[in-house]
Amino acid sequence: MTSTEILDIAAATQVLDSQPFSRVIGARLVEFEPGRATLEIDIRDDLRQQNGFLHGGVLAYAADNALTFAAGSVLGPAVLTGGFSVNYLRPARGGTLRAQAVVVHAGRRQAVARCDLYAVSPEGESVLCAVAQGTVMTTQTS
Amino acid sequence: MTSTEILDIAAATQVLDSQPFSRVIGARLVEFEPGRATLEIDIRDDLRQQNGFLHGGVLAYAADNALTFAAGSVLGPAVLTGGFSVNYLRPARGGTLRAQAVVVHAGRRQAVARCDLYAVSPEGESVLCAVAQGTVMTTQTS
Amino acid sequence: MTSTEILDIAAATQVLDSQPFSRVIGARLVEFEPGRATLEIDIRDDLRQQNGFLHGGVLAYAADNALTFAAGSVLGPAVLTGGFSVNYLRPARGGTLRAQAVVVHAGRRQAVARCDLYAVSPEGESVLCAVAQGTVMTTQTS
Amino acid sequence: MTSTEILDIAAATQVLDSQPFSRVIGARLVEFEPGRATLEIDIRDDLRQQNGFLHGGVLAYAADNALTFAAGSVLGPAVLTGGFSVNYLRPARGGTLRAQAVVVHAGRRQAVARCDLYAVSPEGESVLCAVAQGTVMTTQTS
Repeated sequence: MTSTEILDIAAATQVLDSQPFSRVIGARLVEFEPGRATLEIDIRDDLRQQNGFLHGGVLAYAADNALTFAAGSVLGPAVLTGGFSVNYLRPARGGTLRAQAVVVHAGRRQAVARCDLYAVSPEGESVLCAVAQGTVMTTQTS
Repeated sequence: MTSTEILDIAAATQVLDSQPFSRVIGARLVEFEPGRATLEIDIRDDLRQQNGFLHGGVLAYAADNALTFAAGSVLGPAVLTGGFSVNYLRPARGGTLRAQAVVVHAGRRQAVARCDLYAVSPEGESVLCAVAQGTVMTTQTS
Repeated sequence: MTSTEILDIAAATQVLDSQPFSRVIGARLVEFEPGRATLEIDIRDDLRQQNGFLHGGVLAYAADNALTFAAGSVLGPAVLTGGFSVNYLRPARGGTLRAQAVVVHAGRRQAVARCDLYAVSPEGESVLCAVAQGTVMTTQTS
Repeated sequence: MTSTEILDIAAATQVLDSQPFSRVIGARLVEFEPGRATLEIDIRDDLRQQNGFLHGGVLAYAADNALTFAAGSVLGPAVLTGGFSVNYLRPARGGTLRAQAVVVHAGRRQAVARCDLYAVSPEGESVLCAVAQGTVMTTQTS
């Protein structure tokens, strides 16, 4: 992200769509408001590991990016993720992965957010499969 | 991973190649010995974010999978990653991502490992771009 | 913790009071029910760092122990904390530290919990000063 | 920490000794040079949990403070710890706890460090009992 204005969902979607890796994954921004961002990803066969479950790396991608967008909703687009922790709870098999991130604290140059990652079945049933928390910093140098 | 025997690099490579998402990423297992595993990924354009850097989600994938394989080298193939923490240090631009994971402690049903993630230039210069640490558990129930 | 029965708040308080370090800190168990535990600590002068704020190590102790007790409320008393991540948000100055932990997932041999740490003023105003998440395992070997 | 000059071990020891909670714990700074800091703590009976092991909260305190001092050795004394992750490996019973922290990357306003925590017996035998990694930020606002 490269400037300091506050983003709306259309601008944030443009940022997401300008990430080549997010297009490979097929991530969609389905919620974006101050302090919150939600990404969804169809659990396609090419996103799985050897036992048929969604690969942990996809969950980690989703946590990382949802945390970044949630923080970007309050810090502006010029941000970098500092790091995050993720705990895997249950394997995700089918349907849609939904990564919901919420900012728990935002200062002038850093925000901390949490993310809940659900596997949502075609019938709409949600199962929590991972939780994450992380920090995002502005890239402004002054 | 689905049985209890100890893996050699050929068998571990087969596990990696049977992960559809790892084929999407293009991950290669370049080291696998008891207590250590190293993955490499060519930093292709489709793995980038909007500013041309390698996407953090690829770094997170590499940390997750390198930690899992390092732990699998001592716990056997029937393992699940419990979670990990990653700190991003510097953006990775080009060349090859190398994720080197080392087990720091292994018990009967869990291992803890650390991972250093380097961007390696075509000239062979390495720059540390992220560090991670995480836990991996056996899936055996007794 | 040394047996498998489920604890009530009286038994859990006995466990806390049998931890010499928790007596040094002055921790009190003010809530304990299935899936939840809350600890409180008076922010005494001997718990501070050099600038007069509550020492981060006290916040880390409180996160660790609240996560452990919350997990113990569902896994039974024979548990060990595997690890946790904490992000500090704001310094805590005075009043009471309240560490509220909630289990987000419990399996047969492991639970994952989150903890919110508040500084509560004498007037009852709460300020979130840290967030944590961690894993707790049973010590049973079968 | 409250100014921007670089510390030597005498000045850093003064900072540690001006932390009331570190005096309660009995922490000593035994190494302090650019990019490294080591704390030691005698494993006294009042630092234990209910089973006679060193309380996890003491390990977490030691990780937090060793990471902060290691970062302070390169960032200067005006720093705040942003957060850290710790994984517990083995219980610590007796002797001395040694927390060795090393900076893995330092920028202008943030450093990332790792910490190895050993239980050292009176005979000098070291056992790794926890590993941590975390971030420390300057408090300068410009």
